[in-house]
Amino acid sequence: MLGEMQDWPLLTWRLIDHAAQAHGDREIVTATVEGAIHRYTWSDARLRSKQLAAALVALGVEVGDRVGTLAWNTHRHLESWYGIAGMGGVAHTVNPRLFADQIVYIINHAEDRVLLFDISFAKLVAEIAPRLTTVRHFVAMTEPAHMPADAGISNLLCYESLLAAQGTDFQWVMQDERAPAGLCYTSGTTGNPKGVLYSHRANVLHTFGACMADALGLASTSAVLPVVPMYHANAWGIPYAAAAVGAKLVMGGPHFDPGTLHKLIIDEGVTFTAAVPTVWLGMLQFLEKTGQDMGALKTVVIGGSAAPRMMIEAFQNKYGVRVAHAWGMTEMSPLGSVGTPSAHSLQLPAEKQLDLQCKQGRGLFGIDMKITDDAGNSLPRDGESAGHLKVRGPWIVGRYFKGDGGDILDAEGYFDTGDVATIDQWGYIQITDRAKDVIKSGGEWISSIELENAAVAHPEVAEAAVIGVHHPKWDERPLLIVVRKPGASVDKDDILSFLAPRVAKWWLPDDVVFVEGLPHTATGKISKLELRHQFRDYKLPTAA
Amino acid sequence: MLGEMQDWPLLTWRLIDHAAQAHGDREIVTATVEGAIHRYTWSDARLRSKQLAAALVALGVEVGDRVGTLAWNTHRHLESWYGIAGMGGVAHTVNPRLFADQIVYIINHAEDRVLLFDISFAKLVAEIAPRLTTVRHFVAMTEPAHMPADAGISNLLCYESLLAAQGTDFQWVMQDERAPAGLCYTSGTTGNPKGVLYSHRANVLHTFGACMADALGLASTSAVLPVVPMYHANAWGIPYAAAAVGAKLVMGGPHFDPGTLHKLIIDEGVTFTAAVPTVWLGMLQFLEKTGQDMGALKTVVIGGSAAPRMMIEAFQNKYGVRVAHAWGMTEMSPLGSVGTPSAHSLQLPAEKQLDLQCKQGRGLFGIDMKITDDAGNSLPRDGESAGHLKVRGPWIVGRYFKGDGGDILDAEGYFDTGDVATIDQWGYIQITDRAKDVIKSGGEWISSIELENAAVAHPEVAEAAVIGVHHPKWDERPLLIVVRKPGASVDKDDILSFLAPRVAKWWLPDDVVFVEGLPHTATGKISKLELRHQFRDYKLPTAA
Repeated sequence: MLGEMQDWPLLTWRLIDHAAQAHGDREIVTATVEGAIHRYTWSDARLRSKQLAAALVALGVEVGDRVGTLAWNTHRHLESWYGIAGMGGVAHTVNPRLFADQIVYIINHAEDRVLLFDISFAKLVAEIAPRLTTVRHFVAMTEPAHMPADAGISNLLCYESLLAAQGTDFQWVMQDERAPAGLCYTSGTTGNPKGVLYSHRANVLHTFGACMADALGLASTSAVLPVVPMYHANAWGIPYAAAAVGAKLVMGGPHFDPGTLHKLIIDEGVTFTAAVPTVWLGMLQFLEKTGQDMGALKTVVIGGSAAPRMMIEAFQNKYGVRVAHAWGMTEMSPLGSVGTPSAHSLQLPAEKQLDLQCKQGRGLFGIDMKITDDAGNSLPRDGESAGHLKVRGPWIVGRYFKGDGGDILDAEGYFDTGDVATIDQWGYIQITDRAKDVIKSGGEWISSIELENAAVAHPEVAEAAVIGVHHPKWDERPLLIVVRKPGASVDKDDILSFLAPRVAKWWLPDDVVFVEGLPHTATGKISKLELRHQFRDYKLPTAA
Repeated sequence: MLGEMQDWPLLTWRLIDHAAQAHGDREIVTATVEGAIHRYTWSDARLRSKQLAAALVALGVEVGDRVGTLAWNTHRHLESWYGIAGMGGVAHTVNPRLFADQIVYIINHAEDRVLLFDISFAKLVAEIAPRLTTVRHFVAMTEPAHMPADAGISNLLCYESLLAAQGTDFQWVMQDERAPAGLCYTSGTTGNPKGVLYSHRANVLHTFGACMADALGLASTSAVLPVVPMYHANAWGIPYAAAAVGAKLVMGGPHFDPGTLHKLIIDEGVTFTAAVPTVWLGMLQFLEKTGQDMGALKTVVIGGSAAPRMMIEAFQNKYGVRVAHAWGMTEMSPLGSVGTPSAHSLQLPAEKQLDLQCKQGRGLFGIDMKITDDAGNSLPRDGESAGHLKVRGPWIVGRYFKGDGGDILDAEGYFDTGDVATIDQWGYIQITDRAKDVIKSGGEWISSIELENAAVAHPEVAEAAVIGVHHPKWDERPLLIVVRKPGASVDKDDILSFLAPRVAKWWLPDDVVFVEGLPHTATGKISKLELRHQFRDYKLPTAA
């Protein structure tokens, strides 16, 4: 026997239909690639998404086909999400900051039929086009006047011309809610990138989760600026969440500089924004320098990596902006946890509340979490035990696209995030390291991140990284690699004396080496992989 | 091709599992039927729900079986929702305020196998037990010390004894998310009551919708008092929503008097509460009389019928409590719309904002709405055109239990709510009448509710009702039926003069009659059905 409620598949086009009908006059504002500020409404966005859907059908795109995008956060990129999925296709966001070889691999692996790209990427597309084996049409996301001249891309189409040829009465495709709507590849540090094929159901359920008051808490009165790019883990789901509640959506296009972002925040009355910590470091320096405030901004969500405590303090105490840490990943659509206050936290002194805010928040309903040891045994939620953080839920990957990587769930159906974390009794998780970066010393785990955080607190240290190096007795011991600030002369003994009162004695690095610079990945993180390669034969002084 | 996300059926036991794991120490507080305040946590509630599930299995309840409840809002009633659905059964909430014959009909129609009841209802159960053809076990929801003596119910079991015999390690039943979890009958004014068979999926999706910031907006820091009973339209989904976010849940048991409710609000730091207008009228009088305030209360949600403007003003201006109108019905799980502010409303002067608050709010994502004329043609969203309000969505009934009433959806899959409403350009709906109460005069519609509201504003009118009476030329014309306040002598001319500047000229009632009292339904509403019966042969003076 089944219940007797209506069958109403959870499809992403319902989000923009709702926005257009219940919040049709709310604006979408874009600082465009071409330069001007573009401004229209959710009603307009829906009609143009329908025009795009019709145009894709006219180009021969079929249900289930992938359509790639190389694009910033713009109104056209937004239309592509709803238009592609609305005609039954799969919106494949490609990260333009990856190396060209990776981009070629990803587009060919996804078998994209059409590639939509911002004119910023015309040169890149011209360079890789000959190696793209499945793309039949290249579409520059601009109007005729801004089409790149002599782009060197054969058969180049113009987005606005394609739309102008279509009416606005396209009928969204009604299909199984488990049908795919989106695709995003993880830029794995080893092996080829792997694709996460999002279903309509996962995207809509993630939207519901993200809109909860204790998650992003968006409302129709919100004005939302997702600085996090749409090509990076769905811009944390904000382009869907904003539609679900009819929020005003403000997008920075190719602009990530504090000046442009700040002007958008002030001019558009932004109340909510989200980005990685580096963006906010730049913003704090900008505010300091210009003496400006944050206008109507109420909430900053910070994810991608941990926000420094001073950043949280500065936003809250100097600018009256609440900071919420969030945690997630491409494989999680991406939200897993958000750092909103618990009832018990409101009773704590300010310093203790800040301690909690430095954690990565609490899991949303829809995310089952556990931490385990290497053997897969669950560890207690005591805020002390660190283990592999594993997750289960309707917006978590079940397997990678085309089965790459094989079976990725444990016997209970959990996906291993690759993060190491603690969970405290109130459900707050704290990411202590990436599993592959943890230093396993005599069977115990040392967090490379905590050591790095302790080291960069030294006033003469510009950047620091910790890796595990082979040790005959302890298996691995930490090696600290430091970049000095210009003109600084700090040495090994200074560093170790500085660390001694700050970390457990057995965590102290066995050696400290000084380098001119550290290797970074395409997304700006320190490349531990490269460091481990550089120091693969390093002999620790304690290993004699 | 399908997406590659995890299969994670939306089942209601996941809500209490989440509450226990992420918010295990948050409290559930009940003013019990037996008299004392009972206090425990979501963790405790989960374990006891598992004990109940095991006890039901031991009693022979099978997957798909219905288990009835005749109970107030208590921790045990909460356990029954999660325990029954968690073992694969269907929690059938029976409204104890219905007439005994209706209760007998409902329980037999549902084929309840077990009936759980609060000791307040022991006499009622003893009276109807001989006529219940499917109930095998009667369970008094109390501890041995409070078991009713000589209840006259054969085979009477004690809830606490049943639980004490079971462990807490019951494995929740994993099943299709479309499986039934709950059942509630509508007390239709004509014909037999009809059942709405809620699926797990509908309940969980409704929970997501209800938790949105622009709906109930509950958070883990909330302390929630649902005054609306669990036997009435799922207590507006609050027992599920509170679990999803880990809110403190405060329940009044059999107590609906302002004194007890006020004490709970103050003692337990209640921040959010929900009830029908009559409860809040009583509360306002209590506050006026005692000079007390509302403590930590921030939000009052009012539904069931329209809240008078003065009530909204009093809560907001005198007590600093935000009032949100909500609208829904049993067939909608029940939430359809909630009256949270729109961006445009924040720009309006206070009086205009209040006008909007008197409307029934805006539809949630998940609810498709339309208004149509009698022929089913959609009407514009102009705030003026009143039409049949029809809804579609994953928590809206698809058909009544056992197919009663036949096909209830239109060609586009919409359910006719029986309400007449306008929708304005910002998505705010305003219920202007019940379709069967609208007076159809010369092809135009006159709202009986608006006429009644205008009439009761007269200082000498205690109660008023308007019905349509046959008219040879206009088909129907309004008849106003008035109960004078004690000692008042207001007459027909006074009333009509009072109404003249307040309603359209052609809306003015063709006659006014004065009566000693009006007939009411079991749930306290004026019985228009009975009035139409009483006045079925009434000759209007204008009908000559």
